[in-house]
Amino acid sequence: MAVEVVYRSSRDPERLFMDKAEADRHDKMLELAELLSDVLQKAVPSLSEEQGEELGIYMARNRDVFAKAFKNQPDALGELGSEPQAE
Amino acid sequence: MAVEVVYRSSRDPERLFMDKAEADRHDKMLELAELLSDVLQKAVPSLSEEQGEELGIYMARNRDVFAKAFKNQPDALGELGSEPQAE
Repeated sequence: MAVEVVYRSSRDPERLFMDKAEADRHDKMLELAELLSDVLQKAVPSLSEEQGEELGIYMARNRDVFAKAFKNQPDALGELGSEPQAE
Repeated sequence: MAVEVVYRSSRDPERLFMDKAEADRHDKMLELAELLSDVLQKAVPSLSEEQGEELGIYMARNRDVFAKAFKNQPDALGELGSEPQAE
């Protein structure tokens, strides 16, 4: 037995990481997801809280693709087509 | 009376522009909106078609802010807070 260091994001305390950089990435992803959910739910009030959260998480997980699409390559969104939704 | 040139996007034939560059911008915005709607509806199948369209248009109209947010400034989304939704 030994004591070891694990890392987690306070936004998702259940998920533990052995690597601090990974925990940081997860935290940043969740931060972006939360901000997106808020903004989208304000913009489209008919969204349920769950739909807002799903949208935020999905876009934050694929942030590189969306960054390209919003910058000047809308076709980059094609990269998302066939990806699985699962974690 | 005189004949004059007007411009429109084939994606939105009702809206006429006197300025070609403006028509181009409108067309590009609508292109991005359509691609976003498709991608988001695939990712979150519970979205109605109307919700998907609203999300796409909203994000495409604010593409500069979303570009910043997805690149590396999530806080840029704060700029959207108090803006009106109307056209």
